[in-house]
Amino acid sequence: MKKRIMPDLEFVRELYSSSDPVHGFDHIKRVYNLCKTIGNAEGARMDILLSAALLHDCDGSEPTSPNRSEHHLHSADRAEQILREMGWEQEDILKVQHCIRAHRFRKGEKAKTIEAKALFDADKLDVIGAIGIARTIGYAVQAGEPFYFKPSQTFLQTGKLEEGEHHSVYHEYLFKLRKVKDMLYTSTGKQLADGRHAFLETFFTQLEAEVNGLR
Amino acid sequence: MKKRIMPDLEFVRELYSSSDPVHGFDHIKRVYNLCKTIGNAEGARMDILLSAALLHDCDGSEPTSPNRSEHHLHSADRAEQILREMGWEQEDILKVQHCIRAHRFRKGEKAKTIEAKALFDADKLDVIGAIGIARTIGYAVQAGEPFYFKPSQTFLQTGKLEEGEHHSVYHEYLFKLRKVKDMLYTSTGKQLADGRHAFLETFFTQLEAEVNGLR
Repeated sequence: MKKRIMPDLEFVRELYSSSDPVHGFDHIKRVYNLCKTIGNAEGARMDILLSAALLHDCDGSEPTSPNRSEHHLHSADRAEQILREMGWEQEDILKVQHCIRAHRFRKGEKAKTIEAKALFDADKLDVIGAIGIARTIGYAVQAGEPFYFKPSQTFLQTGKLEEGEHHSVYHEYLFKLRKVKDMLYTSTGKQLADGRHAFLETFFTQLEAEVNGLR
Repeated sequence: MKKRIMPDLEFVRELYSSSDPVHGFDHIKRVYNLCKTIGNAEGARMDILLSAALLHDCDGSEPTSPNRSEHHLHSADRAEQILREMGWEQEDILKVQHCIRAHRFRKGEKAKTIEAKALFDADKLDVIGAIGIARTIGYAVQAGEPFYFKPSQTFLQTGKLEEGEHHSVYHEYLFKLRKVKDMLYTSTGKQLADGRHAFLETFFTQLEAEVNGLR
């Protein structure tokens, strides 16, 4: 086997924004750490999985990018160039690329390998729990949305806002965050998601009580 | 007694920003709701307390205002004009003004009446708990600060950042949020603060574990 170089956090730091607390390098670090936990428990090939974690958003994922909706494809292409320069064999590069192309929820390939499933789960776990709450608040503040607005019956039943109703962080919890745990593949990912999901419920119950001056 | 008008949430809505999720009208609504809970339990005069809650930030509190550091004085002056136009007696206006002038932590009068103590506690409670977390994340995102950066020993001991250390939401918790509960006056406020304080600890323990891929 040829001598090859492994990418690491330091190596990929320059590929990501450091100033955006919602996207960027901190997200990569968290997904990388989650992949260690999930991958080790699930018996994944860690060279494949961790390289995919480091490179999964490396091209076009920033919100202003014209390639954002296809960033899994662009990132997989860029990963191939990077790993080839590092001396990786084509077979392993393809494995990393599959993980990257399969990390999106509605787009891309369906995850087939344990490495691709582990990366998908790690990426989705970063949408829930305390971090998911912080990221959602971050998005909302950037968009000028409130933390809490009482959801209408219409929203609860259809996901659509009534006239005069404002989308809030609480709406995002109801509409999206609380559904994430049911998307995951691996048993380790599901276990982590259970804890994070319970934490979401705790947080938003507390938030609603506080808004009403009750806690 | 002369017929007078009571201010209410609808009346003060136009005095506050509706688009800033960190400051603005939502903060007033929450403080108003907390004042109901605290004031009723503590036997406060609710006409004084709730009017003070509605008007406590009514002049100069927005972050861009040149009067921000003295907004308790400007708001007390504005409250006098408003309540006089509503037919209030001078004696009661002075009681409301004392609450408003005493609602800051480091500035202004020290709270002497139960109404002033209740407003102070309600205003400080809005800095902790789920809402305090959301507001702190909001500030951080606006300032380009990360959610979490591992605090140095220097920061833990002195509150000062080491070279290369970034101030984060977690730093703000360590330096400020976790100290708020010890500032409060009323037993109802302290009781609410205990619950919110425990929630802060839960949140930041969870956040740190998630950052490291452990939960």
